[in-house]
Amino acid sequence: MKARVTVYPRREILDPQGKAIREALARVGFEEVREVRAGKSFEIELGDLDPARAGERLREMCERLLANTVVEEYVVELEGPARS
Amino acid sequence: MKARVTVYPRREILDPQGKAIREALARVGFEEVREVRAGKSFEIELGDLDPARAGERLREMCERLLANTVVEEYVVELEGPARS
Repeated sequence: MKARVTVYPRREILDPQGKAIREALARVGFEEVREVRAGKSFEIELGDLDPARAGERLREMCERLLANTVVEEYVVELEGPARS
Repeated sequence: MKARVTVYPRREILDPQGKAIREALARVGFEEVREVRAGKSFEIELGDLDPARAGERLREMCERLLANTVVEEYVVELEGPARS
């Protein structure tokens, strides 16, 4: 079972890193960029769990360790069986 | 047009951050985690571009600024029109 966890600053929290990237992109000619949110991505390979249990465990990992839920929000996406 | 860009260390490059996270997860009881890759995620809001052009511009952004292609690989995903 493979999953992707994405952690972003909460919408109501300032994202100075995203702002800096947007400005840097504009300076090198990408003026069409309106907004950038900068976050973290974790690709996680799990043992054989059923999807419901995997989702539950991944949310626990986010709450315990991967995200700071005071200032960050997370999204868990299951990507199906591990590639052999 | 909204897009997501994910940047990960190349598979052949060591990912000490991912390894540290896997070990930390195991220590707090998530022994089912086999591997973690730790990367960056950018949610990018673009002006009105057609998807082919948006994909091209996003790949240019990765090559120019968002990824260090010597040691990182990137994935561009288009997510459809901006939410109003």
